[in-house]
Amino acid sequence: MTKFYQTLSADEVKNILNYKLISHDQIEEIKIENALERVLAKDIISPINVPGFSKSRMDGYAVKAKDTFGAEEDKPINLKKMGEIRAGINSNLVLNEKECIQIATGAPIPNGADAVVMVEYTEEENEIVKIFKSVAPQQYIIQIGADIKKGEIALKKEKQLNTRDLGLLSALGITKITVYSKPKVTIFSTGDELVPPGVQLTSGKIYDINSTTIYNAVKESGGIPLIKGIIKDDYETLKRIISEEISKIDFLIISGGTSKGTGDYLPEVIKNLKNLNLYIHGIRIKPGKPTLLSAVEDKTYIKPIIVLPGYPTSALTIFYHFIAPLIRKWAHLPRPKEKIINAIAKKRIYSELGRRELRPVKITEEDDKIFAEPIHTGSEAISTLALTDGYIDIPEQVQLIEEGEKIEVNLFS
Amino acid sequence: MTKFYQTLSADEVKNILNYKLISHDQIEEIKIENALERVLAKDIISPINVPGFSKSRMDGYAVKAKDTFGAEEDKPINLKKMGEIRAGINSNLVLNEKECIQIATGAPIPNGADAVVMVEYTEEENEIVKIFKSVAPQQYIIQIGADIKKGEIALKKEKQLNTRDLGLLSALGITKITVYSKPKVTIFSTGDELVPPGVQLTSGKIYDINSTTIYNAVKESGGIPLIKGIIKDDYETLKRIISEEISKIDFLIISGGTSKGTGDYLPEVIKNLKNLNLYIHGIRIKPGKPTLLSAVEDKTYIKPIIVLPGYPTSALTIFYHFIAPLIRKWAHLPRPKEKIINAIAKKRIYSELGRRELRPVKITEEDDKIFAEPIHTGSEAISTLALTDGYIDIPEQVQLIEEGEKIEVNLFS
Repeated sequence: MTKFYQTLSADEVKNILNYKLISHDQIEEIKIENALERVLAKDIISPINVPGFSKSRMDGYAVKAKDTFGAEEDKPINLKKMGEIRAGINSNLVLNEKECIQIATGAPIPNGADAVVMVEYTEEENEIVKIFKSVAPQQYIIQIGADIKKGEIALKKEKQLNTRDLGLLSALGITKITVYSKPKVTIFSTGDELVPPGVQLTSGKIYDINSTTIYNAVKESGGIPLIKGIIKDDYETLKRIISEEISKIDFLIISGGTSKGTGDYLPEVIKNLKNLNLYIHGIRIKPGKPTLLSAVEDKTYIKPIIVLPGYPTSALTIFYHFIAPLIRKWAHLPRPKEKIINAIAKKRIYSELGRRELRPVKITEEDDKIFAEPIHTGSEAISTLALTDGYIDIPEQVQLIEEGEKIEVNLFS
Repeated sequence: MTKFYQTLSADEVKNILNYKLISHDQIEEIKIENALERVLAKDIISPINVPGFSKSRMDGYAVKAKDTFGAEEDKPINLKKMGEIRAGINSNLVLNEKECIQIATGAPIPNGADAVVMVEYTEEENEIVKIFKSVAPQQYIIQIGADIKKGEIALKKEKQLNTRDLGLLSALGITKITVYSKPKVTIFSTGDELVPPGVQLTSGKIYDINSTTIYNAVKESGGIPLIKGIIKDDYETLKRIISEEISKIDFLIISGGTSKGTGDYLPEVIKNLKNLNLYIHGIRIKPGKPTLLSAVEDKTYIKPIIVLPGYPTSALTIFYHFIAPLIRKWAHLPRPKEKIINAIAKKRIYSELGRRELRPVKITEEDDKIFAEPIHTGSEAISTLALTDGYIDIPEQVQLIEEGEKIEVNLFS
C-alpha cells in the first residue's frame, strides 16, 4: 500500500482529478422555476411550431394580395370589411375576393387571406376600406414555424440555462426539464479544540470556521452542501460517521484540526474503508501538505473523500484550487468567468525556492489599477481569512516577485 | 393629472428612479447558512476576543523565557518536563522555574509560561528537555485578542457577505445576523392571446414568456419573485388583483400583451388606485414607449407598480436598464461587476436619428476579440430573445455605428 502514500506535485494532482475522479453522471427532472444556471442533460426538441399559426406582423387589414395590385396613393382600391380579428381570438372568418378583415398585430391570419396592409395605408368608412398601397403575397405575415420549427433542437445538451433560455422554454410550453444533478457534499470538521458557533466557548476551545466556509464554497461551486458538524477525533466514531455518510452522498469533505495532534486517526480510518482508493496524501504545494484525496469506488459509483488542511485560509485555498473545479465538472458547469485577474504586486513577495506555493493575497484598487499584496497575519489568524481575496500561484523556481511586477490572481469567489 | 402623462427621456427616468423611488428599508434576522451574498443592515461588533486565550503558535515547549537565556546549540539548558497540553484541552498545569510543559500548536499557554521553544530546538529524554536556543519573552505566543478584539467592529453595515465573511462570523460564534430584506416582487402578464406554459395551445394563442424571464431577472437582481400568472385584461379583474397584491408585496411588475388592443385598461386601473403617484408613462427610448412607472405610497411606504413592454426582448431590456438597478438599490446590493463590456461592432449598425435606442445584440468571440452584432429577427420573435446577450445604448444623435467601431455592451446577466 505504500505506493499510495507518496506526496504528489500540483500538476500530478490535477491529472488525477481530471482522469481518475470521473463522475458517473446523475440526472434529474426539475421545474423551470428552479432551473436558472442549471445544465441541460438532454437536448430540448421543440414540441411545437413557433408561432403555431400564421399571424399578422402589423395592425392593419388582412387581404388577398392580388386584390390590392395597382392601388396607389391617388388611386385607392376599395375592399369590403367583413369583420375584425384581435390577438388571442380564434376566428372562423373566411376571406373572399374584394374583401378585407381588420387584424391586430399577433392575431391569426384568416383563411383566404395572404397578406396584410398596414393601417397607415388605409382609410375606413362605412365598412368600406380604401387601400392606398399594394402589398405582395405574404407581406406582413409571420409564417407558422418562422421562429422555431417543431422537431428542431431549441437548446443543446450541456447548455447552462440563463434567463433567456428559460424564456425560450416557456415559449415552447415546456415546464419541466432534465438537468445534471448537483453533487451532494457532506462537510465535517475534526479537532478536539473545535466547538460549533452558537455555544459558549470554554478555555482552550475555538469556534469551527471551516464548516461554514466550505459549506458556502461548495454552494458557489455548484454542489449541495450539508454540514454534519464537528466529529470527535476517535477511530470508531470517525469510521462510523464516514461509512454512514458515504453511503448517502456524493462527496465527503473533512477539514482537519489546526494542531498537529488532531486528525491523527483520519488517514487510518479512511485507508481502511471498503473499496477505498487512496490517490493522494500530501500535495507538494504550500499549504497542501495535509491534503488527502481518496474515493470509495466500484464499477457503478465513485465517491470522493477529501481531507483539507485545518487552517481556514489554507483549507479554502486548497478547496478553490483543486476541489471546486472537480465539483463544477461533476455538475457539468462551465469554468466561471473572471476567476483569474491580472494585478500588480504592491510589495515584494518572497517565496521558498524549490517549493510551489499558493499565497493568499488581498486586492486593492488605486487609479484604475489593480494591486495584490500578500497578507502578513499568520495562516492561523481569522483576520487572514477575512482579508484574503484570492491567491497567487508561485512556481517552485521563483523566489522573489518584485514590487510592480505583473501577477495573476485566482479570485476566491 | 395630465402633467404626469408626459413621456420622459431615459435620463429623466433615471433621476426619478434615483431620487423619488426611495426604499423604506426593511431588515430581517437570518441564519448564517442562508447569508451568502446578503447585505448587513448593522455593524457586527465582536462579542469575544479571538483568540480567547493566549496560545502557542508552534509545537514545542512552554517555558519561562529567562530560563532559556544563554542556551546555545553546543551549550543546552536542561528543563524538567511537567506535563503536556494538547489543543482544545483546558489544562490546570502551572509552570514554575526551570520547568517546561510540552505544548501543541493552538494549545493554551499554561500559567507561569511566557514563551514557547520550537520542538526543533529541543531534545527530550527521561522527562528532561534539553533547550538548544534561547527565546525572548512572548516568542511564539499568540496573545488574547491578537486577531480580533472584543468590542471591535468585525464587519461593517452595508457589507455584502462572501464566504470568508461568513467564516469570520463563525469564528466569533455568531449564528444569526440582521440583513436588509430582499424586495418581494409579484409578476403578472396581461393579454388575451397568452396561456401559461404547460397547457395545450389553441389556435391564436401563444405561451406567456415574460412571467418566466422577469421572474428569473428579478431573482438575479436580488429580489424575491412570485409569479401570479396571466390576468384577464378586464378593468375589474385588474383592479382587484393589483389592489390585493400591492397590499402584500413591495413591487408589482406587469408586462402588457404583444398586441395593440391588449393592456388598454392597465394605465386606467393603475391611475385610479388609492395613493397612486404616476411618475412615468412612456420613456423616449426604443423600446420604452409602453413603459409605465408608478407607485402606491404614503409616508410609511412606497410600492412601485411597473408596466413593461409586451415583447420579451423589449421587456427584458427595459427591465435590466431601469428596474434591475432599482431592485438592487432597494436590496442594498452593490452594482454587479462586469455588467458592461467593451466590444467591436461586427457589422454596421443603423439607428433612427433623434431617438435614443437600447438595441439588443449578440456577442461572439474571435481571436480573443469580443464582437457585438445587432439581431435581425423581429422584436416579436422568441429567437431574438434566445440570441440576445445584452444591449447597446445608442444616443439620439447617433445614426450610424461603423463596422469595427468600439462599443459598450450592457450584458443581460
